[in-house]
This record gives sequence, structure tokens and C-alpha cells, in this order.
Amino acid sequence: MTSPAYDLWYWPSIQGRGEFVRLFMAAAGIPYRDRARTDDAQALVEDMEAREKSGQFAPYAPPYLVEREMGFAIAQVAHILTWLTDKHDLDSGDPATDLHLIQLQLTITDIVAEVHDTHHPVASGLYFDDQKDAAKRAAKAFREERIPKYFDHFEAALSVKPGPFMVGATWSHVDTSLFQLVEGLRYAFPLRMAAITDDYPKLMACRDAVAEIEGVASYLDSEARIPFNEDGIFRHYEELDAA
Amino acid sequence: MTSPAYDLWYWPSIQGRGEFVRLFMAAAGIPYRDRARTDDAQALVEDMEAREKSGQFAPYAPPYLVEREMGFAIAQVAHILTWLTDKHDLDSGDPATDLHLIQLQLTITDIVAEVHDTHHPVASGLYFDDQKDAAKRAAKAFREERIPKYFDHFEAALSVKPGPFMVGATWSHVDTSLFQLVEGLRYAFPLRMAAITDDYPKLMACRDAVAEIEGVASYLDSEARIPFNEDGIFRHYEELDAA
Repeated sequence: MTSPAYDLWYWPSIQGRGEFVRLFMAAAGIPYRDRARTDDAQALVEDMEAREKSGQFAPYAPPYLVEREMGFAIAQVAHILTWLTDKHDLDSGDPATDLHLIQLQLTITDIVAEVHDTHHPVASGLYFDDQKDAAKRAAKAFREERIPKYFDHFEAALSVKPGPFMVGATWSHVDTSLFQLVEGLRYAFPLRMAAITDDYPKLMACRDAVAEIEGVASYLDSEARIPFNEDGIFRHYEELDAA
Repeated sequence: MTSPAYDLWYWPSIQGRGEFVRLFMAAAGIPYRDRARTDDAQALVEDMEAREKSGQFAPYAPPYLVEREMGFAIAQVAHILTWLTDKHDLDSGDPATDLHLIQLQLTITDIVAEVHDTHHPVASGLYFDDQKDAAKRAAKAFREERIPKYFDHFEAALSVKPGPFMVGATWSHVDTSLFQLVEGLRYAFPLRMAAITDDYPKLMACRDAVAEIEGVASYLDSEARIPFNEDGIFRHYEELDAA
């Protein structure tokens, strides 16, 4: 048996941004070696430092995917997923649609950064407890203004084609990322999400359809899917949630 | 004379994210109609609403570029620049390098979002004065930790090839965006930028080389380049700057 063509590097203790890559790989059935499960954080730091000092272009931050035969490393979730989509012929077949999918994926990147900033509005390097007051105000604005604005947009986009996925009957990288977004927000803001779920039937149907993709269902049922926790992007703090 | 093939839509009163597109267009000599100079903010809002209701995939936010003949609209700065690079044969000629350039552009997207969050750490919808205390703490962390981390990365990337640009003698979309990043940070954080400029000779040389690209020089000298101001992404508030 040949070893997988790819190595995925990410922090071992969280789902974080790496999870968007894992879900895509699971849906596509692309084998890879998950270095977050075989190596510790120190190994990741050393790999990153070696790349930055290599005299070649290097990732700014994980996750990054390494094509082992070529030694080629690629970072940034939306970029990794776009690259894999193209490489493994998982595109929609229509170039304009593929461009819209990338745009949607980048919009998901934006909301994911905003989710992180709800619990770390002041600085990533400070503890949550040292920015809790700002976090409460940030989370309120995020819950009340930002989630509906983004979700309205995704719901409208999911209305363009028949569904359940963004381009119809076939999943794309946008769908696996929307699944993770909904799952993460349900974990972080259960009261708020329960209150608005009925307003977004197409988004929730997309989430459900992704959960049923064979590779995704197996992955979610495995130990490789580590639970959400309070070190990741999607964190549950009671004081940040409300209906 | 035929009218330009593209319309650029963005907010009229700021450079903002639209400026990254303008600088690229100027460097490439691609003609376009700048709707931020011919139309008001209300026209932009109406155009966005019409697109969201059109039953087609639509931008989440400006800037977006419309290919007039096809009616095709594309949003997200990194995506617009990548698309134009491909369409106008402005790629590096090496596919792996082009992928690294996209990755670098997405890293610029990340720092630009962090710049915005220095003056609006709690919520975009609140006034600066209502989040000034959090902004002071956010700006301190950004000045002291984030700028050096990103700049170290860009300086290392600019050391891969001979310079002055990211891939050598020919500019790419990354260089025009690095120019705007440096210009914006110099406007927002003049004390901090003066203190660290000498640590980043390749980044500053890249900035200077972009300013000398013929189309960029003409653009910067024109009235189309509106000044930085306190409604944009890069804002100067004395209380947020320090060496």
C-alpha cells in the first residue's frame, strides 16, 4: 500500500481551521496523513520554522497541506480547498459557478475570523478572562447582527440552485465548510442558534445533507473527529450566548 | 472608443478594500469604470440588493468587479486579483509560484482585517468612541506583536527571489497589495512604522518599486486616489499609535 499523497499540519488539540480541510478530505475520500494526530505541537512549530527559514515560500500559519512527492506546501483554508477541488476534478463543471464557490468560501473565512473575535476581541495573545467585558459586547453584536447578515446571504445563495447543496445534488467545498460553520455555531451559541434555526431551512438542510455524505458520516463517527473545546475557534462560554 | 470592460463597485468615501483593486488595475493598465467615483453610496446599496435578490450568486460585500459584457460579478479582494491575474496573463509563469502568491495575498487579507479591528475591536456597528478602551489595548497588541509577525513573514518571502518584487523583476498582485498595506500602516501608525522601517528593507524596497510602476505613479498623482481618512480601514487616531 502506498502512503497517502498529502500531509496535513495543524494544532493537535483543537478542530480549529484544520477541520474545514478534514471535512473536505473526508467527503472527497482523499487519503492523507493527519500530522495533528501523529505529531505534537512542537513538531508543528519546528516544521513551520524550518519552512520559513528554507529560502522558499512558506505558510504564515497552519493549517497547511504538503504534497509529499513534490514537497509543495499550501496554506489558507479557502486556498487549500480550491486547489484540491481543481486537482481532484471536484469542480462544478461551470467556471463561473466555481468562481462563485470560491467567493462563498472566502466569505465563510470572514465569518470564522469573526467567530474567533467574539471571545478574543482585543488580542489573540490575551486570556479570555482579560477581555471578557469586550467579549460580551462583541458576542452580542455578532449574535444579533452578524449571524443573521451572513446567514441571510448563505440562505439566498442556497436558493440559486435546487439543493440540498450549493450547486444542487453534488456537494462542494462550500457545503462541507457550511456544515462546520453551523456545527461550530451550535456549539458556541446554542441558545442563539436554536432561536434562529427555523429561519434558515436551506442552510440547515445543507448541513444535514453534508452529515450524510458517506465519508463525512464515517469521519464524524470516528475518534479522528475530536470534540469542540475552549481552546478552538468555536468556544462555548455561557456569558457570550443568548437567544 | 469602447467603454471599459469592467465596473468596480465600492463605497465612495474611502480607499478601503477597493483600493487594493484600484492599485492592481493601475499597475496592469486595465481600464475600468470606477462606480465609487460616478455613483453614490445609495446606488451601491441598491446594486447589491438587486444582486442578492436576482436569484443568482451575489457578492456578500463590496468591493466587487462586474465584467460588463457577461454581467458576471466577483467579490473578495484576493479573489478579484487572482481572477484578473489569470484572465490578463499576469501570472508568474510558474504554477507553484502563482499558488504561493495567492497564499500571500490571503495573508494580506488577514492583516487588513486585523488593522480594521484595532479601531473597531468590539463591533463594526459601534462608534470608535464607544470602544476606545478596547481599541487602545487591541492597537498595542497589533503594533507590538502582529505587525512584526506579519512583516517578518513578508520580509522572508521577499528574500526568496532577487527582488524588488515578490517574484523578482516583475510585479504581481501581492506587490501592489503590500504597497497599500505599508502606506496604510504608515498613515495609521506613523510612530510605530518609523520605528521599525529599517528592520524591513526588502518590504520597503518593494513598496518603493510599486510606487514607480508607471500606471501606479500616475494613479497616485491623480485625484482618483482619495486620501486616507477616519472612515476607512486604515485610520489615524493618536491614542492608538506609539513607537
